[in-house]
Amino acid sequence: MNFSAERLFTEARTHNGFTDEPVSDAQLRQIYDLMKWAPTSANASPARIVFVRSPAAKAKLLECVSPGNVDKTRAAPVTAIIGMDMAFYDKLPQLFPHADARSWFIGKKEFADTTAFRNSSLQGGYFIIAARAVGLDCGPMSGFDNAKLDAAFWAGSETRTNFICNLGRGDPAKLFARSPRLTFEEACRID
Amino acid sequence: MNFSAERLFTEARTHNGFTDEPVSDAQLRQIYDLMKWAPTSANASPARIVFVRSPAAKAKLLECVSPGNVDKTRAAPVTAIIGMDMAFYDKLPQLFPHADARSWFIGKKEFADTTAFRNSSLQGGYFIIAARAVGLDCGPMSGFDNAKLDAAFWAGSETRTNFICNLGRGDPAKLFARSPRLTFEEACRID
Repeated sequence: MNFSAERLFTEARTHNGFTDEPVSDAQLRQIYDLMKWAPTSANASPARIVFVRSPAAKAKLLECVSPGNVDKTRAAPVTAIIGMDMAFYDKLPQLFPHADARSWFIGKKEFADTTAFRNSSLQGGYFIIAARAVGLDCGPMSGFDNAKLDAAFWAGSETRTNFICNLGRGDPAKLFARSPRLTFEEACRID
Repeated sequence: MNFSAERLFTEARTHNGFTDEPVSDAQLRQIYDLMKWAPTSANASPARIVFVRSPAAKAKLLECVSPGNVDKTRAAPVTAIIGMDMAFYDKLPQLFPHADARSWFIGKKEFADTTAFRNSSLQGGYFIIAARAVGLDCGPMSGFDNAKLDAAFWAGSETRTNFICNLGRGDPAKLFARSPRLTFEEACRID
């Protein structure tokens, strides 16, 4: 499988409208089978994902998103909820079997929470690039009611929502003009 | 430019040793010119990067990293410091010119801090995939003295370090065995 720079980065856009073209289970599994290999601290892999696709689940989700995100979320064939398992360290004996990495986090809530947030966000970045790689367009959003969404989709678990992301075939007619980016000199330096 | 799934995701590894092959300015600019296009909330683009390459800067960096990260950081031709501009909102009139997005963050420190951390981490994910895309190997790390590193590289600014990442041509002889990943069923569900 090969991907172009245009598809992954330079021409890809954040989409606000989507066509009716459905998203298959196979595409969702392909996304995960790419992103799962990218690095996280101690291989902790804290991201958890709910792919919201059925009408019942979508209706539940729509009650949690900000007013400005309702129409595009309704239009998207799938919305991914990117969560973070705040008890990710309980999986470290499986994911990092050569050391007692679980003990690095037990009783250190602030360190564990920071690790969950940083690394599930890194995985969110991998997710977006992987979704584009399998031919889907993305519309990531952070405007939603966290407590309500957590209760609706992560009840009974230690997982909390990080952000959500519409997935599908984007409708170019609904794109906004592209906003500028910082230049290399504005964002970077070489020491 | 085309990239393989193996190069970006499935065969790429976190490297602990690097060859002497240098990393050029052009490669560092190519990384940024890919990653800058990937999405952030309100196009806020909070990531700032110092590419540490000169012997003097590298020596300064080595005093800030955890003992277990010293040798590999010394071996890497470049170490990128991925920072987050905690006052990123001051650039929103430039980056998001069609609305007064700066006002969404002013006086809301917790919301602004969370946005800086989430989005600079997303950009960290884009950075790692982009570095692989331009042919480099990565070794991301979060073991360092934050206060010391911030004082050494971000003095006089509102930027704070998120994580650091070695860059270069990885030495396959120094790889560890690959750790397992969660299955789709362990990490995801389709609702």
